[in-house]
Amino acid sequence: MKFRSLLAFSILSFGFSSLVAADEFTTKQIEQVKQVREAALESDLSWQLLSSLTTEVGPRLPGTENDKKAVAWAQDKFKKLGFDKVWIEEATFPEWRRYHESAKIILPSEQPLHLTALGNSVSTPKDGLTGEIVLFETLDELIAAPANSLKGKIAFINYRMNRHVDGNGYGPAVRARNSGAVEAAKKGAIAYMMRSVSTSHHRFAHTGGSHYKEGVTKIPSTAVANPDADQLARLVDAGHKVKVALNIQTEDLGQGTSYNVIGEFTGTQFPEQYVLIGGHLDSWDLGTGALDDGAGVALTMAAAKHIADVKRPKRSIRVVLFAAEELGLWGAKAYFEKHKNDLGNIVAAAESDFGADVVYGFESRVNAASLPAVREIAKQLAPLNVTYIGKNSANGGPDLIPLKNATSAPQLAPLNVTYIGKNSANGGPDLIPLKNATSAPIFALHQDGTDYFDYHHTADDTLDKVDPAKLKQNTAAYAVFALMAADAKTKLSGK
Amino acid sequence: MKFRSLLAFSILSFGFSSLVAADEFTTKQIEQVKQVREAALESDLSWQLLSSLTTEVGPRLPGTENDKKAVAWAQDKFKKLGFDKVWIEEATFPEWRRYHESAKIILPSEQPLHLTALGNSVSTPKDGLTGEIVLFETLDELIAAPANSLKGKIAFINYRMNRHVDGNGYGPAVRARNSGAVEAAKKGAIAYMMRSVSTSHHRFAHTGGSHYKEGVTKIPSTAVANPDADQLARLVDAGHKVKVALNIQTEDLGQGTSYNVIGEFTGTQFPEQYVLIGGHLDSWDLGTGALDDGAGVALTMAAAKHIADVKRPKRSIRVVLFAAEELGLWGAKAYFEKHKNDLGNIVAAAESDFGADVVYGFESRVNAASLPAVREIAKQLAPLNVTYIGKNSANGGPDLIPLKNATSAPQLAPLNVTYIGKNSANGGPDLIPLKNATSAPIFALHQDGTDYFDYHHTADDTLDKVDPAKLKQNTAAYAVFALMAADAKTKLSGK
Ligand SMILES: [Zn+2]
Ligand SMILES: [Zn+2]
Ligand SMILES: [Zn+2]
Ligand SMILES: [Zn+2]
Repeated sequence: MKFRSLLAFSILSFGFSSLVAADEFTTKQIEQVKQVREAALESDLSWQLLSSLTTEVGPRLPGTENDKKAVAWAQDKFKKLGFDKVWIEEATFPEWRRYHESAKIILPSEQPLHLTALGNSVSTPKDGLTGEIVLFETLDELIAAPANSLKGKIAFINYRMNRHVDGNGYGPAVRARNSGAVEAAKKGAIAYMMRSVSTSHHRFAHTGGSHYKEGVTKIPSTAVANPDADQLARLVDAGHKVKVALNIQTEDLGQGTSYNVIGEFTGTQFPEQYVLIGGHLDSWDLGTGALDDGAGVALTMAAAKHIADVKRPKRSIRVVLFAAEELGLWGAKAYFEKHKNDLGNIVAAAESDFGADVVYGFESRVNAASLPAVREIAKQLAPLNVTYIGKNSANGGPDLIPLKNATSAPQLAPLNVTYIGKNSANGGPDLIPLKNATSAPIFALHQDGTDYFDYHHTADDTLDKVDPAKLKQNTAAYAVFALMAADAKTKLSGK
Repeated sequence: MKFRSLLAFSILSFGFSSLVAADEFTTKQIEQVKQVREAALESDLSWQLLSSLTTEVGPRLPGTENDKKAVAWAQDKFKKLGFDKVWIEEATFPEWRRYHESAKIILPSEQPLHLTALGNSVSTPKDGLTGEIVLFETLDELIAAPANSLKGKIAFINYRMNRHVDGNGYGPAVRARNSGAVEAAKKGAIAYMMRSVSTSHHRFAHTGGSHYKEGVTKIPSTAVANPDADQLARLVDAGHKVKVALNIQTEDLGQGTSYNVIGEFTGTQFPEQYVLIGGHLDSWDLGTGALDDGAGVALTMAAAKHIADVKRPKRSIRVVLFAAEELGLWGAKAYFEKHKNDLGNIVAAAESDFGADVVYGFESRVNAASLPAVREIAKQLAPLNVTYIGKNSANGGPDLIPLKNATSAPQLAPLNVTYIGKNSANGGPDLIPLKNATSAPIFALHQDGTDYFDYHHTADDTLDKVDPAKLKQNTAAYAVFALMAADAKTKLSGK
């Protein structure tokens, strides 16, 4: 999955261009794809957009002044880039703010704790609260604790997230974020702390959505940085009574409003049909949302522009920058609800929302009749070191397809690449409503997520964490994918 | 400088033990050195001490409750380890506290800034202050600014520290920390900010000593994390007026008192003569002082213990844990002042205060008559992958000895190691008063400092940043050095 010598690959593949003629694309179309790919690999447009968004706007918590600035920023950039249509669509969401957070160990010795409130957390009393921590390894261990056993205490779950290229350690770790506070409150806890859902060994606490339950007392819900979680665990191991002071001030502001920002280059033959690419415009408030998801915003905007610089394809290219993803996919829900009667116009959909490391895999979820075109797209992604991930079933579910199934992916052989058994493509979080609503053709351009959770949802998610060369590769991959999906002879369809 | 296969080296060298007979050490003594070296490489004593100090005490700013706990901790550990003598010696220093620090960009958009007060900084007004930043690349550029040109502004120096194995990027960068606030105030600035003296690309602001000057207005003196410095620079580059709000609350508490903590194993033939090893017990308040300088404390304590487990050498081994180093070498000044009439009893001195990465070089500053013993010590450090750094002059000054001088270091040839032109050994910051006061034999066990300034003086200086295997190598190197210096036939002397 290393990103090496892209240019060499591209030049090499160029020599064989006349050999890749296929029913779905003319030789001329393939030449145009290559032209777009080369332009995207050379251009720093996606970097310029990302730098501007994360620097001049900065953090973009839904409903804040900066969120409004981001909406204006996106419209302005779409227009300046020459998109044929630019518009916004309203989305509402439960608005929440973080005002203050501080914490320290007060026994056995005073030490600062690097801690953050989880999204949606209630406040502590104004002067904070103090309590002894009770350590659990897992959410299940907390759930199994005796009734009332946490009365006056602070529950602390020290579950460690695993590092993996596809981020599969995130889901299991997020369980404790979603319902830890509820389960702790049921046992009488006055506050909830968890080890960050993060692979970082730096002192950054990781925020993210959390939830309360009707009828269960709402207690402050927080995460500590991993070195601080280690410190708490060592103190408990050494037999100390560990007492912590915590002050969290947040506010639930009721229903807020923001906007999906949409830019489109209009197709020449079937303008109502469109390829949907995009990311989410909002971010958490701690960092500047460079990896999550400034990168997705910037690279999909740039990819569309690189296509339009060469041609308007048969079908439209629509870049959707979703609102309020972090608070619960609110922009995506609004988008797919609003467009529910014409989702059949979507010929391909892919969201970039997994950082900015290289795209290493390309996966589809389409009707069998669309597979020849998909394989042609995969061939044009191969020079970017993107592997085509064949699969037999669109409903692969959460389990890995065993490597023994590799033989059922014969199309891989000519590309000389390794078959990677994977989950079914789901196209990014904002496409979940789409996947649930329709049999739309969804694609995943899998990014290497090995380091993503070192930064994701922390103060450390800043521009310097993005490698400009990798961002270019991402942009090129999206440009190739979107152009070909929009320009194929056959309209791609879902299954 | 990689730390590889120490055990293999040790076993290999063991086979040649009968060949290293030399006038300074008997074969039996050399066997004891090897025994100590092996024990130190296998033991986790230094790790246990470091874990306990950084976890159970935590940050140790001079004069705080935790500083007192550290003094008690060190005496207790010395006693439990069976040191023959354990005592404390008073040191006074200017006591300072950090109570609150927060900062944000308010124009062109609101964004948090990760910032810390430099040591000794005065407070802002209680409600903070706001001002436009004026960016300078270097301290010299600030000094060259016109009179009054910073009236009402916040001066910001964006000098980038270079990464280097011997940390030579630190000194030039520290210039702006030492006198930036003074120079800014002279031009009318209301506050001073600087890029962190740090090689980290994470959002940790770096603290450290700073100074004011009689007759120049004291303005708040701060450093921002490097990603935040980049953000400010990008905003300035983009042509924005960049306004920042800053709130720093600190306190100058006048003269404080702390203690050097000293443990000694008494020599059998010349008990009044001693090898001095140690580190500083205090730390900055942001992290837990694991690399700076918990490691030096723990590994020198453990090294002495490993020696004593095998034998009491001819001369004493004294471990000095200096007080209040961070605020200006106050413990060291007190120690060398108190012992100024018997500094001649010091047969070798070396402080470990550069993190816990591998010791790669061994350097002396001794009388020519002492060199045969030094070379024998170097031979016993070689199995730890420690290079003997020969030099011609004790007064090498700050400049590197050019590699062309390598030919004047013939003793390196038989060890088959690379000659590294270096500064004269100075033995660590706490030995500066010693170096100034006397011609004592000073040694440097150079540690690889490539990553040291990623953590040093930040909140991220925590236990997890220490590699247990490297800490063992350090401990073994100090044990070998201290044992041999204490047990040599000839008393080592300075030049
Ligand atoms: Zn996201
Ligand atoms: Zn997110
Ligand atoms: Zn130090
Ligand atoms: Zn220091």
